[in-house]
Amino acid sequence: MTKYRLEAFSDGVFAIAITILILNIRLPETDASHLQQALKDLAPHFVAYAMSFIVIGLYWVAHHTSFHKIAKVDGVFIWLNMLLLLFVSFMPFPAYLLGKYPLEEVPLMLYGVTLIATNLMGFFMTLYTSYHPELLAESFTKKDFMKQYPIYILVNASYVIAIILAPFFPKVSYIIYIGIAFIMVFFYARISAK
Amino acid sequence: MTKYRLEAFSDGVFAIAITILILNIRLPETDASHLQQALKDLAPHFVAYAMSFIVIGLYWVAHHTSFHKIAKVDGVFIWLNMLLLLFVSFMPFPAYLLGKYPLEEVPLMLYGVTLIATNLMGFFMTLYTSYHPELLAESFTKKDFMKQYPIYILVNASYVIAIILAPFFPKVSYIIYIGIAFIMVFFYARISAK
Amino acid sequence: MTKYRLEAFSDGVFAIAITILILNIRLPETDASHLQQALKDLAPHFVAYAMSFIVIGLYWVAHHTSFHKIAKVDGVFIWLNMLLLLFVSFMPFPAYLLGKYPLEEVPLMLYGVTLIATNLMGFFMTLYTSYHPELLAESFTKKDFMKQYPIYILVNASYVIAIILAPFFPKVSYIIYIGIAFIMVFFYARISAK
Amino acid sequence: MTKYRLEAFSDGVFAIAITILILNIRLPETDASHLQQALKDLAPHFVAYAMSFIVIGLYWVAHHTSFHKIAKVDGVFIWLNMLLLLFVSFMPFPAYLLGKYPLEEVPLMLYGVTLIATNLMGFFMTLYTSYHPELLAESFTKKDFMKQYPIYILVNASYVIAIILAPFFPKVSYIIYIGIAFIMVFFYARISAK
Repeated sequence: MTKYRLEAFSDGVFAIAITILILNIRLPETDASHLQQALKDLAPHFVAYAMSFIVIGLYWVAHHTSFHKIAKVDGVFIWLNMLLLLFVSFMPFPAYLLGKYPLEEVPLMLYGVTLIATNLMGFFMTLYTSYHPELLAESFTKKDFMKQYPIYILVNASYVIAIILAPFFPKVSYIIYIGIAFIMVFFYARISAK
Repeated sequence: MTKYRLEAFSDGVFAIAITILILNIRLPETDASHLQQALKDLAPHFVAYAMSFIVIGLYWVAHHTSFHKIAKVDGVFIWLNMLLLLFVSFMPFPAYLLGKYPLEEVPLMLYGVTLIATNLMGFFMTLYTSYHPELLAESFTKKDFMKQYPIYILVNASYVIAIILAPFFPKVSYIIYIGIAFIMVFFYARISAK
Repeated sequence: MTKYRLEAFSDGVFAIAITILILNIRLPETDASHLQQALKDLAPHFVAYAMSFIVIGLYWVAHHTSFHKIAKVDGVFIWLNMLLLLFVSFMPFPAYLLGKYPLEEVPLMLYGVTLIATNLMGFFMTLYTSYHPELLAESFTKKDFMKQYPIYILVNASYVIAIILAPFFPKVSYIIYIGIAFIMVFFYARISAK
Repeated sequence: MTKYRLEAFSDGVFAIAITILILNIRLPETDASHLQQALKDLAPHFVAYAMSFIVIGLYWVAHHTSFHKIAKVDGVFIWLNMLLLLFVSFMPFPAYLLGKYPLEEVPLMLYGVTLIATNLMGFFMTLYTSYHPELLAESFTKKDFMKQYPIYILVNASYVIAIILAPFFPKVSYIIYIGIAFIMVFFYARISAK
């Protein structure tokens, strides 16, 4: 298998996961006169939709950025990538929970756990390639690899904080998820430029 | 990231969003003897389905037409495109509302707002590239850019009118959406030819 | 737009429409002891699923076969293709109806009407290219075009018969749909070989 | 039709089937205070989701591995592949059943039957190409073909055992499915390497 097939398959999964997020927003049975109120009640779903769309979009951009360094793939890499996709595909479920119960601790914690699990798989993929230089396209030294550490640690530490705060300050927890998504968009917007 | 990956990912999102529109049409529980009536009751859903299919099809064609002018993409362009896709992916929701409550003001207004938001993102992408000629494939002067103004303004002004008329003349509002879709099909059918 | 983009987008819609057919099969709430009976009751859904999967598969193969003759596409061709995709995407709905009410006249008739509408769009695309030889890749004379007439007419005439028979002999109507699908698989299995 | 189009279409179906597995996990209506319990009750769904994701991933990897040996495709091969995709697309249904009734005999048996049916189609494709060397890219002798026999037989014999044990020892049956998936991941992780 070439890296191109794996990338195309991954792109397909990213595109489907991001697009079926909308299926989470379901209007409850209501008569026309209460439609405006029903839509207002769905507001947390719209927020969860927008944030999760951006989050999956971020994973897609990050996936591509890291695949630039890859020249070929092997069996272990394929299955680490499959586990990454498993968590990306899972995202619509915690996104639904967060839309339905926006300030409850369980959804906020599950959301964070899913994000950390996805990041961890990405981290394992990077780690694996750092020990298998034969998979790399360009000279990508251990030093380059360690440059990525701080951002990995910062993002996931923030998610851990969001999880811990969820039962006590759910709003702060939610704001951390939104804030990190915003910051990462700007981060990737800058490094994707060429 | 090359423009081709971004285009392929966008194509995937367009294809999924357009195809899951059909999931909006759900037959209510009914016994066989009332099936014909149940289908007649779904008529507004069929109209909303067909129109929204054409509308997303139009955005797809417009997306490609504009990508012809692009040579490469940068981070800002990627995220403007992501926001465009966010609104395209959102379309099945207002399409469902319009199918369920075809002549109510709220669905008609939300439909228009979604269309304008999508157009606005397309406009921002065009605007951004006009200020970043290094992203353009061919000589695309500010003058060329300004040629597109009238059509942008006309279409979105029509949507604004449809939104304003929605509470008073919902049928007129609906007809404007259908009419603009028809006109744009003919417009793109002509310029896509080569 | 090149024919390749249009083909890739169409492939995406075909692949999604064919895969979401499974969402039509929903197990009703039942306790474990009645599960076997519940699955037996779903039997008509399994038949409708398999047949509709084959039918969309056939349209996909036919689409590719006809795209072999195409060198480039123009605006009218793109929109005829979009209408074809509209009916292909619509298929999960009549497929659901047929699974739910397998021997009722309305679902059997709607199924036939959808198939004829899809075929008609394919016919219009072929007709259009026969009048626009500049779109064709290879010498494809009017004579070649007329060779396809008999099979078009036979298939659609059978569907018309199935629609007419639906209220009186629903089983015969259903068997016609299955029979035509089978015959077409063998027909395309032979001509796709090269 | 080239093998590349068939592969791309198949990839699309694999990617969609694997991603819509998440739609099987639906939170029942519950108030926030019982959310944690509701999620615990969904545990069997999470297991079925993860296992089925890996299983479809395995079919995708196996599909690609076998397509490496193919140089071109003919009509029979296309339709054998279509039947393979039919069973792959069907997977979300037995996956849902297994999530809903994890230790009941019917879901465990249906799951095994679906896996065997999918494997059988893969086997028929391999068998067909072994009798049509003109489709093969590289020298792939009958001997090479027979090398694959043991693994095919072992896997499917295990599934048969799981089906037979399902009514008596459902847990053993379930563990067999999980175990085979794990073993196959390691098997493919090794042979995909190059």
